Amino acid sequence: MNTWNETLSIFALGGVYEIGKNMYGIQYGDEIVLIDCGSKFPDESYLGIDLIIPDVSYLLENQEKVRALIVTHGHEDHIGGIPYFLRQLNVPVYGTRLTLGLIELKLKEHNLLHQSTLISIDRDSTISLGSLTISFFQTNHSIPDCLGVVFETKAGSIVHTGDFKFDLTPVHKQSPDLHRMAEIGQKGVLALLSESTNAERPGFTPSEKHVGDRLLEAFSKAQQKIFVSTFASNVYRLQQVIDAAEATNRKLALLGRSMINVVKIASEQGYLHIPEDMLVEIEEVSELDPARVAVLCTGSQGEPMAALSRLSTSGYRHVKVERGDTVILSSSPIPGNERNVARIVDNLFIMGANVIYGSGTGMHVSGHGFQEELKLMLTLMKPKYLIPIHGEYRMLHQHRLLAESVGVDFESIFIVNNGDVVDIHDGVAVQERKIPAGNTLVDGLGIGDVGNGILRDRKHLSEDGILVIVVTRSKTDGKILSGPDLISRGFIHAPESEGLLEEATRIASEVITNLQEANVSQWNRLKQGMRESIGKFVYAKTKRRPMILPIIMDV
Amino acid sequence: MNTWNETLSIFALGGVYEIGKNMYGIQYGDEIVLIDCGSKFPDESYLGIDLIIPDVSYLLENQEKVRALIVTHGHEDHIGGIPYFLRQLNVPVYGTRLTLGLIELKLKEHNLLHQSTLISIDRDSTISLGSLTISFFQTNHSIPDCLGVVFETKAGSIVHTGDFKFDLTPVHKQSPDLHRMAEIGQKGVLALLSESTNAERPGFTPSEKHVGDRLLEAFSKAQQKIFVSTFASNVYRLQQVIDAAEATNRKLALLGRSMINVVKIASEQGYLHIPEDMLVEIEEVSELDPARVAVLCTGSQGEPMAALSRLSTSGYRHVKVERGDTVILSSSPIPGNERNVARIVDNLFIMGANVIYGSGTGMHVSGHGFQEELKLMLTLMKPKYLIPIHGEYRMLHQHRLLAESVGVDFESIFIVNNGDVVDIHDGVAVQERKIPAGNTLVDGLGIGDVGNGILRDRKHLSEDGILVIVVTRSKTDGKILSGPDLISRGFIHAPESEGLLEEATRIASEVITNLQEANVSQWNRLKQGMRESIGKFVYAKTKRRPMILPIIMDV
Repeated sequence: MNTWNETLSIFALGGVYEIGKNMYGIQYGDEIVLIDCGSKFPDESYLGIDLIIPDVSYLLENQEKVRALIVTHGHEDHIGGIPYFLRQLNVPVYGTRLTLGLIELKLKEHNLLHQSTLISIDRDSTISLGSLTISFFQTNHSIPDCLGVVFETKAGSIVHTGDFKFDLTPVHKQSPDLHRMAEIGQKGVLALLSESTNAERPGFTPSEKHVGDRLLEAFSKAQQKIFVSTFASNVYRLQQVIDAAEATNRKLALLGRSMINVVKIASEQGYLHIPEDMLVEIEEVSELDPARVAVLCTGSQGEPMAALSRLSTSGYRHVKVERGDTVILSSSPIPGNERNVARIVDNLFIMGANVIYGSGTGMHVSGHGFQEELKLMLTLMKPKYLIPIHGEYRMLHQHRLLAESVGVDFESIFIVNNGDVVDIHDGVAVQERKIPAGNTLVDGLGIGDVGNGILRDRKHLSEDGILVIVVTRSKTDGKILSGPDLISRGFIHAPESEGLLEEATRIASEVITNLQEANVSQWNRLKQGMRESIGKFVYAKTKRRPMILPIIMDV
Repeated sequence: MNTWNETLSIFALGGVYEIGKNMYGIQYGDEIVLIDCGSKFPDESYLGIDLIIPDVSYLLENQEKVRALIVTHGHEDHIGGIPYFLRQLNVPVYGTRLTLGLIELKLKEHNLLHQSTLISIDRDSTISLGSLTISFFQTNHSIPDCLGVVFETKAGSIVHTGDFKFDLTPVHKQSPDLHRMAEIGQKGVLALLSESTNAERPGFTPSEKHVGDRLLEAFSKAQQKIFVSTFASNVYRLQQVIDAAEATNRKLALLGRSMINVVKIASEQGYLHIPEDMLVEIEEVSELDPARVAVLCTGSQGEPMAALSRLSTSGYRHVKVERGDTVILSSSPIPGNERNVARIVDNLFIMGANVIYGSGTGMHVSGHGFQEELKLMLTLMKPKYLIPIHGEYRMLHQHRLLAESVGVDFESIFIVNNGDVVDIHDGVAVQERKIPAGNTLVDGLGIGDVGNGILRDRKHLSEDGILVIVVTRSKTDGKILSGPDLISRGFIHAPESEGLLEEATRIASEVITNLQEANVSQWNRLKQGMRESIGKFVYAKTKRRPMILPIIMDV
């Protein structure tokens, strides 16, 4: 029997009802511990926005309680928000070596490394923070040294899985810690936060090892240069490319900043084993026998500025894709990137490359467990309560169905949105309250200074452009001294629209004259009148609605 | 032995190196016959554009030669450009009854029906146009009465497949005309234009009949209302929904303008068989027993203004999705629409619906043949030359590989871009010349008046907004009478940016003063100076590059 008074609260600041920007919190008495602080890339509705990070205002309001940020692994959706967060709240960050290596890179770029506290942990670490004891278990995923987190409290244990799959033939023998998970489950789990990314996909993820077999096949067949594009952070994949290059006696060059960074960190830390003399500079590639060289590059998501995209168009001075070369996309496009990736594949085929792409080729496996693996986690952990995390609503929903199928009650499953709090008191969980949560938008140097108003204006401008109307009036008698002048951008092509703009100018003059005769002198009424009349006229003539911006200068 | 002198030319004005806006031409002596005139929906790079249609300037230059437009079937990517084309060039349009019915709808909307010549044909029709004899064969696809086209000339036969699959258990027994195809192939095909949409997909498309089985299952299980969303033009699918509703004793309501239009045309023409008393008005749905009604609706591609999207948010006055209702997405998202569809599925789940979606459910099959079907077409037609059509480059490329696998020589396969011409003379094909071709953009009432400059401006405005700087100067002495005033839209949130805009105003004043002191009085130099100085300042402060629009008013 447990006896305690404190309420144990669990909340999400990012990562539910969405993919990306993961950030979760456990609050027990006066302690808040955070798990992950990710970012996500904006979809096309966030015009001009560079990055989306969690709104952390709840944490700023409770900063004296925030004790630690634990990072499960080094992917952007788990670490991308850290520099922005630490600038506001300097808490110690815990992670495995590779995770911290990737965080350090970010903090250096933001000039924050010197003032941050990074604490290295491993699967066997234990952290005591007040009344919380935190321990870990190793999972496997598409980056090494991923952790699940166990919070032991007097109220019971909370488990956060991080990202996971169950790869039973893993690269580098980084097996999922099945025995430890079984032990945790056996001791009793009050609430499980488990990832839902692939909750829609039946079956069991194929092992990363399969990709190695396919890579070796392709490397063996290729007669000329080979380019392999993948996520730089997928160190296992990089290792398998290195292994295939070694087996087929090829040198290897790296292309793309993040590829170079990750290979450096991962090999320094011993996660990546590169045969001596295998690596060559990218400038040397053109001098080598094409049959004896491969290039490992970034850009597998079709990012327009990354290496693969550039290779598919202009290429680089020292390395180009040539007729007969092999290009392997060892990746699967994230929703929204399909068209960019397809355009690159088209261009590479046009250049005469043999492109190996698409799901049928076995060149990629997911790092997130499918339905059977989610059920396996649930079965190992036997939680009283489940909070599905990491996923858009339908994924959380499917995860709930899976949980029900292995015996978790419908009432014990909490599908929460960002900001929802699950409070557990006397062993009973309720979801009744909310804390502030949402998207903070990063645009250039601005963090949070672009809101819905600005986005609405950008959307408006993007569709039909702008029509600026400038008039100069006399301060003394209101007489028009100059204008109305009409200037448009993004609205209509100038020569063809001459007549239209002339007539609109006439209408603007009329509006001003009429309103002035009616003794209306306030700018706002005048501007409103111009917006309406010209808007109506322009729409009737073009069926477009440019933003109309009247400017009245009184001199 | 053939003897002839005329060159037979084949060209594409749309549909290759892309999906959509199909338009092909056969020119033989003084006759040009066109096949299809489609449109395509712009991707996100075409900001504010409504529709993309083929550039038909080559046809306008040769209008006396253009004899006919043959339309293979009634999908948007084959008929969407017709109203725009006929407005410029009034040629007779040939199509089957359903195809013409759908074209008539469009022409009515554009107020062009009275002046157009529509000629109804069927699979057994023959058309003689000068030295061309045109006949047809029936294919099957996701809309009834699809035709392949055979052009018999003294130079040999050209075959255009239209869209096709080989569904051997088709709905309404509209079987592919295998015997006729075999006969055409046996007589000899000089060049085959064959569609490539699914050239990347191995195997054979499942039959439309399978969808009927799945629909019936879902209808039998559902306890409440059922919503089925699909392409309105997929008349076979509509029939199967009707059949499932009949088998489960449900009334059926229609939601969405195109659904109502297509059901009307298709049932009037006898393509759709609806039991008497089955159809009810949408207003009646709320009064019926939920277990005895289904709704057939548009919006399966996630189109924000269509019925399914609206059902997933506010709903309609007389019909809403309620907890326990079933919603079936009988469709597969077209690349680019995935996120919109996913958002709708999420919302429907949140509303408590049982949503049946995704490729694993068997609720959709493609209307385009997979690899084995493309090979079957090639084997039946035994063409001397192949021109793969309908597809982005990688699909055309894969189609070439398939053709090679069934024995067509690499040299006999022409992958053409829009505007490329394949000329066949004395039985020998060469691809050496080009005609004008490209995208004509439709924006509101404007056709072709939005070009790259306007799109570049819209892109710029969409990313960082605009900063307008207005100054009034005295005509006599160049003294600044008013301003500089700075007005921004879509750039930065006003309260937070006050200091920034103040300083920018100061810089603008400085630039004007300095330049005037240096005796620079030309507007352009002044404007350029302001753009540079303010642009540099703003970028340093914000890392954003709003469009800077200086306006100088001389009074």
